[in-house]
Amino acid sequence: MAQPAPVLAEGLARIQKDIDAAFDALLPVPQDSRARLYEAMRYAAIGGGKRLRPLLLVSVAELYGVDRHIAVRCGAAVEAIHVYSLIHDDLPCMDDDDLRHSKPTLHKAYDEATAVLAGDAFQAFAFEVLSDPATIGDPFARAELVQVLACASGANGMVGGQMIDIVAEGGGFDLPMVARLQQLKTGALLAASVEMGAVLGKLAPEGRTHLRAYARDIGLAFQIADDLLDHEGDQDKAGKALRKDAEANKQTFVSLLGPDRAREQARLLVEQAVDHLRQHGPEADLLRALARYIVERDH
Amino acid sequence: MAQPAPVLAEGLARIQKDIDAAFDALLPVPQDSRARLYEAMRYAAIGGGKRLRPLLLVSVAELYGVDRHIAVRCGAAVEAIHVYSLIHDDLPCMDDDDLRHSKPTLHKAYDEATAVLAGDAFQAFAFEVLSDPATIGDPFARAELVQVLACASGANGMVGGQMIDIVAEGGGFDLPMVARLQQLKTGALLAASVEMGAVLGKLAPEGRTHLRAYARDIGLAFQIADDLLDHEGDQDKAGKALRKDAEANKQTFVSLLGPDRAREQARLLVEQAVDHLRQHGPEADLLRALARYIVERDH
Repeated sequence: MAQPAPVLAEGLARIQKDIDAAFDALLPVPQDSRARLYEAMRYAAIGGGKRLRPLLLVSVAELYGVDRHIAVRCGAAVEAIHVYSLIHDDLPCMDDDDLRHSKPTLHKAYDEATAVLAGDAFQAFAFEVLSDPATIGDPFARAELVQVLACASGANGMVGGQMIDIVAEGGGFDLPMVARLQQLKTGALLAASVEMGAVLGKLAPEGRTHLRAYARDIGLAFQIADDLLDHEGDQDKAGKALRKDAEANKQTFVSLLGPDRAREQARLLVEQAVDHLRQHGPEADLLRALARYIVERDH
Repeated sequence: MAQPAPVLAEGLARIQKDIDAAFDALLPVPQDSRARLYEAMRYAAIGGGKRLRPLLLVSVAELYGVDRHIAVRCGAAVEAIHVYSLIHDDLPCMDDDDLRHSKPTLHKAYDEATAVLAGDAFQAFAFEVLSDPATIGDPFARAELVQVLACASGANGMVGGQMIDIVAEGGGFDLPMVARLQQLKTGALLAASVEMGAVLGKLAPEGRTHLRAYARDIGLAFQIADDLLDHEGDQDKAGKALRKDAEANKQTFVSLLGPDRAREQARLLVEQAVDHLRQHGPEADLLRALARYIVERDH
């Protein structure tokens, strides 16, 4: 099954529209030489991507009745971090990719310098939006949102995971090391999305345990599914180059477990993630469907 | 005169020691494959640079009796943004520089991918430090510090200025355009340093007018002085490649005004900056000396 459940299909369509609208509103092209930078940012950010991170954030926030407009702006901040990481990841000195969301990568469509700067600007943008009183009035929430996202993004989170990923190309990683790599590289930002929804929902840290467990499980499942897609997916549907792990001689969940056990592991993680939501009623159906979709998607 | 005044020499030596100590404490090398990232960050950040931005921040904060430890941590955040911008600026696809602070640039000492990631991690680090309750207890101040620094760093600040700078290599810029470029590229972060000192000092925005005027004037003077150093400075003392503006056929204050008028303009701006501090007594002598040093330094 590759089609998302109706509740999820609707949620995805809605968040994609909302995030595109947020970027459009927050990145007006100025009438000076910075125009090129803003156009590049819009090229990279608008009209592409599944917006899973904003959907996680908004869906958790909605469990606690948070105003959607606030949650969407915070979702745009998380997505800005994701977008910047893709722009920089695609650079010639990194993964050297030509294709992203079925169109030329930013450094191909513009140039490398513009891609470096657009990525840098997106990171600042994320923290500018989160710390803006126009996003959320409560200064404590603003500071905590920044703290959660900055910790998840930096050397102790996503960027640290990318560094390990580069070191991993030499091979010789075992399963705990691959899990640690992915926990940082992909898991940290997914977990931050869930956590930021909980911050907006004014949940005390001790009330967030089940959501953190949900986030941890779907983060790992997400990466196993990604490894499976890289291994056996359809390049046209993915809109990017595949089979890169094997080419780079990189250990992945699939190379270490084999595709069947990896798939089984991902399914178990998803069931576990769904179980963590048992205290919630139908209002958490979107989060449940999202967990299932993560392992069933075909791109 | 190239030697800083005694009050400034002491202030520079002290802030350099404090910022090195802050980076050392905040960037312990982990016992995993992220070690390479942290080592690269330490290579770029510790033991180099004049630390003018932290000195501005700390000196303004001291006018209002702010605890030095708090101000130094915020100074390390501003310096992290400056360091990341230098790392990315030096990349082959940007300025392609081999030398920084008299040692190989980060991508030369490590590699390009590590340099991209170290820069990215430094930007996250800045916002992680500012939003950390361990830096400052008041959440309103934390959120405002992030807001000031993020706005000054991104597409509407430093990164926007770097984009204009690249476009400017085609030539054809007039004086107002060069001033605008520099206001964003260099001025925004210097102004943010002063503003963050005022935030820590709990100054209401209407009480910051004279400090903002001071920051604007020294920012412009700083860039004119930089253009003069690029034009006629000593490459060994600078610890980086010079004469790059002329090679790139780039309009600068010096190419547009000539070196004599540019020098005169910088001096006028410094006198104006010092005059903005007239409401302060001897406690602002370091800020006055810093303004003068900006145009008199030889590197």
